[in-house]
Amino acid sequence: MKDEFEFINRIKPNKTHQPTLIEGIGDDAALIRPESGYDDILCVDTMVENIHFNRKTMTPYQIGYKALAVNMSDIAAMGGQPKFYLVSIAIPNGWTETELDDIYRGMSELAESYEMDLIGGDTVSTSGPLTISVTAHGRVKQDRKLLRRNAKPGDVLFLTGPVGLSAAGLSILLEEAHSDKPIEELTKAHQLPTPQVKAGLLLSESGYRIALNDVSDGLASEAHEIAEASQVHIVIAEDKLPTIEALSFFDKKNVLDWMLNGGEDFQLIGTVSAEHWISLSNLFEKNGQTIHQIGTVSEGPSKVSLNSKNGLMPIDKKGYNHFT
Amino acid sequence: MKDEFEFINRIKPNKTHQPTLIEGIGDDAALIRPESGYDDILCVDTMVENIHFNRKTMTPYQIGYKALAVNMSDIAAMGGQPKFYLVSIAIPNGWTETELDDIYRGMSELAESYEMDLIGGDTVSTSGPLTISVTAHGRVKQDRKLLRRNAKPGDVLFLTGPVGLSAAGLSILLEEAHSDKPIEELTKAHQLPTPQVKAGLLLSESGYRIALNDVSDGLASEAHEIAEASQVHIVIAEDKLPTIEALSFFDKKNVLDWMLNGGEDFQLIGTVSAEHWISLSNLFEKNGQTIHQIGTVSEGPSKVSLNSKNGLMPIDKKGYNHFT
Repeated sequence: MKDEFEFINRIKPNKTHQPTLIEGIGDDAALIRPESGYDDILCVDTMVENIHFNRKTMTPYQIGYKALAVNMSDIAAMGGQPKFYLVSIAIPNGWTETELDDIYRGMSELAESYEMDLIGGDTVSTSGPLTISVTAHGRVKQDRKLLRRNAKPGDVLFLTGPVGLSAAGLSILLEEAHSDKPIEELTKAHQLPTPQVKAGLLLSESGYRIALNDVSDGLASEAHEIAEASQVHIVIAEDKLPTIEALSFFDKKNVLDWMLNGGEDFQLIGTVSAEHWISLSNLFEKNGQTIHQIGTVSEGPSKVSLNSKNGLMPIDKKGYNHFT
Repeated sequence: MKDEFEFINRIKPNKTHQPTLIEGIGDDAALIRPESGYDDILCVDTMVENIHFNRKTMTPYQIGYKALAVNMSDIAAMGGQPKFYLVSIAIPNGWTETELDDIYRGMSELAESYEMDLIGGDTVSTSGPLTISVTAHGRVKQDRKLLRRNAKPGDVLFLTGPVGLSAAGLSILLEEAHSDKPIEELTKAHQLPTPQVKAGLLLSESGYRIALNDVSDGLASEAHEIAEASQVHIVIAEDKLPTIEALSFFDKKNVLDWMLNGGEDFQLIGTVSAEHWISLSNLFEKNGQTIHQIGTVSEGPSKVSLNSKNGLMPIDKKGYNHFT
């Protein structure tokens, strides 16, 4: 890159969508007008080259897209509508201007489809790997708190769509020779994951007591977070886990491991009272969204079990842990 | 570091200050209640080892302190009160748990003195240098917009305190043999800069039309930003630039260069109408804060000049530009 200021001018959006944006890029900080009756949601997620992606598994466009998508997923997991984002990027030598433009294009095209506005950021150089940190801002109706600690014994455990796809996709992308299996749905799940914003909004609008988490670290890990925060025992029914045909071409043991521990699928996992489950699933059907009962919630102490044809087995909190 | 989750538990604040914080660390994202009559301010700044600091020039405590301070300075430059922050950190091998704790202690001690709350973040590993990205949230009274484009011909150019200290301090820290000059005030200006939050609030509360910027990239660069955004000619009077005794021990040419191009002093530079200048400076005096007239604003086209004993000279937009 030749010039930081010229680059900032290039990535600055020509137009913005949100009427509550008072000042975007161009001053010391962005100014946003609050919306009456809503709370603000804030989160940040960072992706590092060779940790979260590499040049072989992801194109620059996909890196940008995913860096924003993972943050939108956190907003979705709070039942919120994503509104704004800020991008901090540390750039090493060796990335061309075209590649950097592609990273921002990946973000802006995803943002565009949700009318999110880029409102700030920081652009620095680094001797290390490309590091991209996105801060996302969203809004949720006041007092609609879809928190991990909301689960209660007797609840239905639900999942908004199939998991394990991203891990399968990554495994394919890391293979030297690509297989002849139908893989596109899997690699796309890894490279261009869809944040479940609509599902999160439906869960929020339902008005029901709902515990919620997004599947970023693996189903087992996310279920453990709900179990611990709510002090309940979560039972996942193996035969109820939604799947897709593309996964049927892989070894069953691998598939179960991808489902439970793979992560990065960004589906939403949660619980709702058995009483409200039918009307919640009707609400999803009416709105063209999927939701599946995948288990049950019973009395604590907090743990997670898998109910399979071999009986009830406790499952660990695996998922990806940096530094282990 | 042994375990990401254990580390997050350790840095999670025991108590929080802001009554508008609904959910802090512990779920997918933070939830904040807006305050009636206020706009929200958002910004992000990133510091990279060996670019913005190194192990010789900064302790871990100072790295953390400064990473938050630079963001608070951006909030101050919008006339806002900083409220919340999120920290994304990419950690290479070789940093001990004690050092990482010190980074967070540097942030939390600064935050504590402003009752700011840590509400989220991300902790990842990296093969590159330590990279710390802080997102800050603040609030400012609605319609108090202290923007760079607010300057008008006839305005007074002001500065809240001396600049060049941080660059002098860095120059001392990079010397092999430390000098016998009184340097502590200078090295401290580099390592533990004070964001001018009180000054920013006074400027906002004054109710006057004010253009404002914080001196992060050097006085010349910041003056250029105001000049360009407002399409005015800014004249800096060399003999009116506030200074401190410690700078008098250094070569005058170096000192002027540090003042104009050094940056990272985080004083506020701005303009206000000549009509309101006296009452503004009285307001500062009454509140125990300093403010200095350092020049004037005249008709554009946009440029910045230095008025010295050699006459009026145009000065460049230097400051630190990554990638050049």
